[in-house]
Amino acid sequence: MAPAVAMLVGMTDTTELPSWRDTAARQRIVEFVAVAVAGIPPEDRIAVFDNDGTLWCEKPLPVQADFLLRRIGELAERYPALRSRQPFKAVAERDHEWLGGAITKHYQGDDADLREMAAGLLQAYEGTTVDEFAHLARDFLVKCEHPALGRPYVETAYQPMTELISYLAQHGFTCYIATGGGRDFLRTVSQDVYGIPADRVIGSSVALEYRDGRIVHTARLDVFDDGPAKPVRIWSRIGRHPILAAGNANGDLPMLRAAGGGRREPLRLLVIHDDAEREFAYTAGAAEAIAAAEAENWVAVSMAGDWSQVFGPR
Amino acid sequence: MAPAVAMLVGMTDTTELPSWRDTAARQRIVEFVAVAVAGIPPEDRIAVFDNDGTLWCEKPLPVQADFLLRRIGELAERYPALRSRQPFKAVAERDHEWLGGAITKHYQGDDADLREMAAGLLQAYEGTTVDEFAHLARDFLVKCEHPALGRPYVETAYQPMTELISYLAQHGFTCYIATGGGRDFLRTVSQDVYGIPADRVIGSSVALEYRDGRIVHTARLDVFDDGPAKPVRIWSRIGRHPILAAGNANGDLPMLRAAGGGRREPLRLLVIHDDAEREFAYTAGAAEAIAAAEAENWVAVSMAGDWSQVFGPR
Repeated sequence: MAPAVAMLVGMTDTTELPSWRDTAARQRIVEFVAVAVAGIPPEDRIAVFDNDGTLWCEKPLPVQADFLLRRIGELAERYPALRSRQPFKAVAERDHEWLGGAITKHYQGDDADLREMAAGLLQAYEGTTVDEFAHLARDFLVKCEHPALGRPYVETAYQPMTELISYLAQHGFTCYIATGGGRDFLRTVSQDVYGIPADRVIGSSVALEYRDGRIVHTARLDVFDDGPAKPVRIWSRIGRHPILAAGNANGDLPMLRAAGGGRREPLRLLVIHDDAEREFAYTAGAAEAIAAAEAENWVAVSMAGDWSQVFGPR
Repeated sequence: MAPAVAMLVGMTDTTELPSWRDTAARQRIVEFVAVAVAGIPPEDRIAVFDNDGTLWCEKPLPVQADFLLRRIGELAERYPALRSRQPFKAVAERDHEWLGGAITKHYQGDDADLREMAAGLLQAYEGTTVDEFAHLARDFLVKCEHPALGRPYVETAYQPMTELISYLAQHGFTCYIATGGGRDFLRTVSQDVYGIPADRVIGSSVALEYRDGRIVHTARLDVFDDGPAKPVRIWSRIGRHPILAAGNANGDLPMLRAAGGGRREPLRLLVIHDDAEREFAYTAGAAEAIAAAEAENWVAVSMAGDWSQVFGPR
């Protein structure tokens, strides 16, 4: 560490980030924040975080997939004719191989099954108002348990990452979530879980429509906020370039690369899922991102090595 | 005024809003704010404002039309082959009738000329990065003079409306702009002119694309943020329902109607352009909105009657 930076770091409170072990990853974060506080005006201290697999657990299935598949199951129960079509068929028959396979195939570049699933999932809340949807989403997130972790979904956020968001906020950063998942789904709990208000959640969305004074869901996709869509949506929402970006998968690469906007050297964090004991160990869908982090000296955050705990107290 | 409301109003500082005459319009605003402060939590005190004709002058042409037509003129000069096509032809030949007619026809429901103009205008900044565009837009707004008002565009905001935005902010409201004009155009000056930061400007946009680490303009329209698109975009950006909405034209009707989200009684303001002396007198494109304001007892703000001054000091 250069002496000037050491002095700046000395000025920050290093008792923060208690769930981070005293490793190089933590040190680089603390250094970056100290330098930003000294040299970058608060309005430009923008940080963006992917959500699934970066801020909370995305295995064995993304949280929203559980939410949507339960609804698909209810619809298949209510309307037997639907059961001849995917994904209603797979849900009704508990065909986890087809369901899990669709996402694995997506990461391998084959979107055929995912498209079929998405077309079904998009119908799940057609005609629902944004307010009814928010009520249902929040209810699910607060009450339903994660299938492996023995806690409600709303408590499956990574404790070190929520500490990082607080730490950044305390140092004048404004944090946003840029999720590939549903914006209006995550918004319902983002303030409680991360201290990030609804208007700072950017993400995927079905097309919404204004009908007679109410805003309702259609069955069409508006934006799938992943890959190259992420930096575009981040700009569209914020109008500034983030100086810190955190992700965990290939779909986060454009967001990570675009950070800094070519003007400033940003901090790029990649969460590595290498902790089979406390969470899940996997690299599927993250191989390119991991290679980029190594080649370009991003901060690769090892869940096993860099975090003293993964989840918060129950 | 009910006694309880009178007491609440007494608690607010009525020396605010100095450019508003002591009329019913001003009184209803002050009452609404007092009641909101007493009963609505700050996170739900959301206000949205249309921009062209509501916050700043839109005559004789919308500000951004001047910006784009100058660029079209430059392109027509540089590439003579373009001059056989609209809008290059009209700009090169100074055919103001065609140019002004396109917008009047739009308000009358005929979009043929507007589409032709838009297709040309969309090409104006194709391939430009968002940062280059921001630089050009800001430069134009700060330096170019309004053709009739004798002041740069950046000083054509209505003083009573900027006072209203400050007044609301002082009472815990968060104000957003929802403009039918270009989001990335207005953003460059929204903080300086209105005290509204870039991330609280919602508006129309060309489709942006991520190319090699940079975000660039394409020649395709992403969203024309007018009419029923406004409440949808407002929800998409904010995730809450505004309780105060202000507009001036038919394109603001869905935004005005959707305010309150069916949960709360909102304040709906409609700026009436009835001041030929200090600004422009016109109702084209606003007839339905004016009728709705009368029928539904919205606050119709008469520029001639309710404002002691229209523009700020030079």
